Amino acid sequence: MRVNGRAMRTIWLNDNGWAVDIIDQTRLPHAFEIVTLKTPEEAAHAIKHMLVRGAPLIGATAAYGMALAMHRDTSDASISHAYDVLLETRPTASNLRWALDRVRAALVPLRPDEREEAAYRLAVDLADEDVAINADIGRHGLPIITAIAEAKGGEPINILTHCNAGWLATVDWGTATAPIYMAHDAGIPVHVWVDETRPRNQGAYLTAWELANHGVPHTVIVDNAGGHLMQHGLVDMCITGTDRTTATGDVCNKIGTYLKALAAHDNGVPFYVGLPSPTIDFSISDGVAEIPIEQRSADEVTHIPGRLENGEIATVQITPDASPAANYAFDVTPARLVTGLITERGVAEASRESIAALFPERIRQSA
Amino acid sequence: MRVNGRAMRTIWLNDNGWAVDIIDQTRLPHAFEIVTLKTPEEAAHAIKHMLVRGAPLIGATAAYGMALAMHRDTSDASISHAYDVLLETRPTASNLRWALDRVRAALVPLRPDEREEAAYRLAVDLADEDVAINADIGRHGLPIITAIAEAKGGEPINILTHCNAGWLATVDWGTATAPIYMAHDAGIPVHVWVDETRPRNQGAYLTAWELANHGVPHTVIVDNAGGHLMQHGLVDMCITGTDRTTATGDVCNKIGTYLKALAAHDNGVPFYVGLPSPTIDFSISDGVAEIPIEQRSADEVTHIPGRLENGEIATVQITPDASPAANYAFDVTPARLVTGLITERGVAEASRESIAALFPERIRQSA
Repeated sequence: MRVNGRAMRTIWLNDNGWAVDIIDQTRLPHAFEIVTLKTPEEAAHAIKHMLVRGAPLIGATAAYGMALAMHRDTSDASISHAYDVLLETRPTASNLRWALDRVRAALVPLRPDEREEAAYRLAVDLADEDVAINADIGRHGLPIITAIAEAKGGEPINILTHCNAGWLATVDWGTATAPIYMAHDAGIPVHVWVDETRPRNQGAYLTAWELANHGVPHTVIVDNAGGHLMQHGLVDMCITGTDRTTATGDVCNKIGTYLKALAAHDNGVPFYVGLPSPTIDFSISDGVAEIPIEQRSADEVTHIPGRLENGEIATVQITPDASPAANYAFDVTPARLVTGLITERGVAEASRESIAALFPERIRQSA
Repeated sequence: MRVNGRAMRTIWLNDNGWAVDIIDQTRLPHAFEIVTLKTPEEAAHAIKHMLVRGAPLIGATAAYGMALAMHRDTSDASISHAYDVLLETRPTASNLRWALDRVRAALVPLRPDEREEAAYRLAVDLADEDVAINADIGRHGLPIITAIAEAKGGEPINILTHCNAGWLATVDWGTATAPIYMAHDAGIPVHVWVDETRPRNQGAYLTAWELANHGVPHTVIVDNAGGHLMQHGLVDMCITGTDRTTATGDVCNKIGTYLKALAAHDNGVPFYVGLPSPTIDFSISDGVAEIPIEQRSADEVTHIPGRLENGEIATVQITPDASPAANYAFDVTPARLVTGLITERGVAEASRESIAALFPERIRQSA
């Protein structure tokens, strides 16, 4: 999407033809800095320290990290070293392992002199595939927004989103945001309510920055505000992302998503989830009972980073020293609160039957 | 309640017998500072700049401000000057006008030489009345907690609260917190989930500080977390305060209360509201339709004050400069989501009939 008027992705080949450029997302929204990665170790550092984040972008960065390894040394030892260095950055990111396995499996059988070119081609393919998947999510979500737009007769469509399932989490378009960007680019008047998304403020830091740069009208709100907005007809639809979706359509996403889905349900506001189909886990049926929820450091609750008046980045503590904090990272929104799942293959209802009808081969695999 | 092991109120007579001491609540939780007010102008400053906040405490401070005026000058002109100076501090605070009217009406008919003593007596009475009301809310709420405690057989009772309806907002006990403090003081094992309550973080700044100082076990959470906790059986009841309650039991309270009430309802968690009966407005029946919601400065969303690592208090900006923010201060929780209203006279269901049965004389007044 656009930054300072120019179309960008989150990861791309440097002008020198072999190094890899990324946006340092830890500096957003206060500074826009591009970092050039020249070694697999630098790619690993970027993943580990969250200069890049979001499953699809982590996968793409890992694939480019393998290409950087092949640029330096095309030996078998170099493949395994890069694989290990990159895998240990974020051991629980399933997309990371999937991307690394795919690249390693393709490189190992090749002659060393074929490996560099093959590795770059694979990394580019993997990035392009992610762009295509998200663009397809956008294309399938667009008619939903168009229908609401027609019903509103030219009034702006107010869309609420939570966290960052935007292009910064992917290579381009984003998952939840793809239909929004497509609607905006098609001239449909959209306005986005951006939940700040405590504790890590991905909405305030990243989604707001994305939308501002692409020129999409938006307003940042605290996570407490969505219910009030929905009670007063100020939200026409919600779209969020998902980290993991059950075979029955339960959605595990950033903490607080469930509260918004409850409010949407209570006020008759449609609640959609944008997702690439690999996030559907056909082995689980009950999200609340079966999905373990990560607890992260209490510091993310008690301390908030931001920009001081003098421009410096600093972190402030908001709680008394004597008060402990808890930090549950995700919650599960039951399928009964979800209007539809917008996937790269089409829109499914949040039900076992509807999901299975869209992905019959996945059902066979998991049977 | 206790601070550093010593029982305190939020406002009291200075040891010199005429000045008035308060806690500077703008410095909490990072510093505990007592400020001495010596003139009605200083009392007005304390109200206007929110060194004291919360309707009951504002009322008490205004009454003490009138007493300070009488200490300086007992003339008619002094009464009207102090009245005007104090009233203009927060023009929309109905408790402020009520307290000032009450004191002025009592002083005007008196001889000047009787006025100082009468003003102090009135201020003390007004503060004591607030303490008594909150203590009664506590006594009526206590059996609810006791019943849950008995059902849990010695396990801690987990109570979720939102914002600060604590003793810092009143003269002592608080409204939502009175039953919690009484249960704790009675040896019932309570643990409080404290919503940080963005945008102004009254939970993280004030409720956490109160509970820590009184020794009540508690954990600060982001406002997004309550739904997940309730889904997993980690909340036994919710208690919040209310700024305004309709004759039918709709509750207008800090933004985000509605989302928690939805989650409580969805998970069978009882949702109680602690309130002094003057907050019931018998002239309105539909809170969502009839109660106008204040919009406050966007700065409260985009900027967060806290303590830097070096101990200084500073404010950080979390949003991009190009992103606007909206700041709705309250929302309305419909009566259907409220289990009970804990008042100084007993517990009412959130229904017109039950409220009327508890306050028959208020119905006659408003008819």
